[in-house]
Amino acid sequence: MPAKLKIGKLVVIGVGLIGGSFALALKKARAVKQVTGVGRTRRNLAVARRLGIIDEALADAARAVEEADFVLLGTPVGQMAEVMASIAPHLPAHAVITDGGSTKQDVIACARRFLGSHFARFVPAHPIAGTERSGAAAAQADLYRDRTVILTPQPETTARAGRTVRAAWQQCGARVIELDAKEHDEMFAAVSHLPHVVAFALVNALAQRPGARKLFGFSGAGLRDTVRIAGSSPEMWRDICLANRAALLDALEGYEAEIERVRAAIESGDGAALGKMFEQARAVRSEWLLGKQR
Amino acid sequence: MPAKLKIGKLVVIGVGLIGGSFALALKKARAVKQVTGVGRTRRNLAVARRLGIIDEALADAARAVEEADFVLLGTPVGQMAEVMASIAPHLPAHAVITDGGSTKQDVIACARRFLGSHFARFVPAHPIAGTERSGAAAAQADLYRDRTVILTPQPETTARAGRTVRAAWQQCGARVIELDAKEHDEMFAAVSHLPHVVAFALVNALAQRPGARKLFGFSGAGLRDTVRIAGSSPEMWRDICLANRAALLDALEGYEAEIERVRAAIESGDGAALGKMFEQARAVRSEWLLGKQR
Repeated sequence: MPAKLKIGKLVVIGVGLIGGSFALALKKARAVKQVTGVGRTRRNLAVARRLGIIDEALADAARAVEEADFVLLGTPVGQMAEVMASIAPHLPAHAVITDGGSTKQDVIACARRFLGSHFARFVPAHPIAGTERSGAAAAQADLYRDRTVILTPQPETTARAGRTVRAAWQQCGARVIELDAKEHDEMFAAVSHLPHVVAFALVNALAQRPGARKLFGFSGAGLRDTVRIAGSSPEMWRDICLANRAALLDALEGYEAEIERVRAAIESGDGAALGKMFEQARAVRSEWLLGKQR
Repeated sequence: MPAKLKIGKLVVIGVGLIGGSFALALKKARAVKQVTGVGRTRRNLAVARRLGIIDEALADAARAVEEADFVLLGTPVGQMAEVMASIAPHLPAHAVITDGGSTKQDVIACARRFLGSHFARFVPAHPIAGTERSGAAAAQADLYRDRTVILTPQPETTARAGRTVRAAWQQCGARVIELDAKEHDEMFAAVSHLPHVVAFALVNALAQRPGARKLFGFSGAGLRDTVRIAGSSPEMWRDICLANRAALLDALEGYEAEIERVRAAIESGDGAALGKMFEQARAVRSEWLLGKQR
């Protein structure tokens, strides 16, 4: 059991799926007294209040953090720099900060640059628990239950901040592990960012065909699942792709080579090669699913 | 309500997900008296008998069809020619034949060549109801419930055969429509065959990365859904890719161009272009899902 955590004032900047679910989970665990939500759109904050995700809604992040004990940065990674720069002068000297960004090296670079002395209390985090839905309405108290949250603490990170942030994610029901930020980014370029690019591109390729509307009408569960994540937030994924550009381009290169191999086998009618590729993919997927069940 | 159908002897050649589910559905609807299953592996046929999918198991398709009233060809499309050639001399003059192949022009060409006079009683069909599982154990009586089955009858097809095959699929719970075979193949190259190629290639691309095993351990629901169909039968999909080669290569070309567009935008750091592509994909997907609900 994780140590019981008690947060006085939690400030969630960006009350979407990630930030909203974090607040709901901590409220459910009675690990927080008061939650202030900060966001760009009034409508989303109103939804968050109505759903009991936040107790107070503010448009100004700087003012919101003035008495914060714990801050979660739940915005798309492309907004982290701006948010950090605006809150840094107003953060109390004891407040711990974490984030929910899908890329870590860029967020850490921003934090190092903009959080100043608060950087030692910033514990970068990536909860592996997205869905294709976004906004406060998509938040769920159990989003993180039995999911993995990856922390990428830095040499400067204080032990207290590390313990507090770990305990908070554990209170959300998550399994918390630590990884090197670079390794994290390379791994997620492959298992997460690449599949999103693939799904977005597949939908666009189909949409450009003549009679696209009729086309989709004939699709089945296969296509539906394959492109589910093309429903994800375009802004969030644009930011991730740019933030993790080098690793993603590397993953894309490997993927394009595979597509090219399949294409060549189809073109030359090489059934043996094609069968072998499909067989291998099925075997790898089965083994991977088995590993997941353990 | 579809006209009540009564089949005396149904012969299912290839008792997998498609053939097995067809037999189970007709049994449940009490629309068939006796089901004979034909397959290459004893083990799968034994499973089919144990699960009550078939009443009799035979290895020899020619012998099996001798007193058939209705024949379903449930093998991968690459085996259709051989199966048709072997059953044609033994088919009764009244038996109607349908299939469950995912491509239609090639199956029709085989049938025209190998079924002889029986071709007029062959009604090509494609049930849009796959899952990634295969074999008799994956069969379900309600696989076709509320799903679409596409028939691509030919000028030679008799009205009686058309009515009987339509009624049989309707008894399985399916909505039956008719399409031109060429249009069918082009459409499914895009909405089904291409996504399968994409899923197989994505798994293989990830599997080739260093530390692939660890990689998969960190993947979430996004990747899992995106590559679900990479669990599909390699043999079946090899055959489909070869049978529908021209249309699939055309669809692949459009997809590769989309991947290239995304890659270029990431490489040049063009956030506006990237955001627009993702936005468009999300909008198209939403509209498509809305259309599906109607």
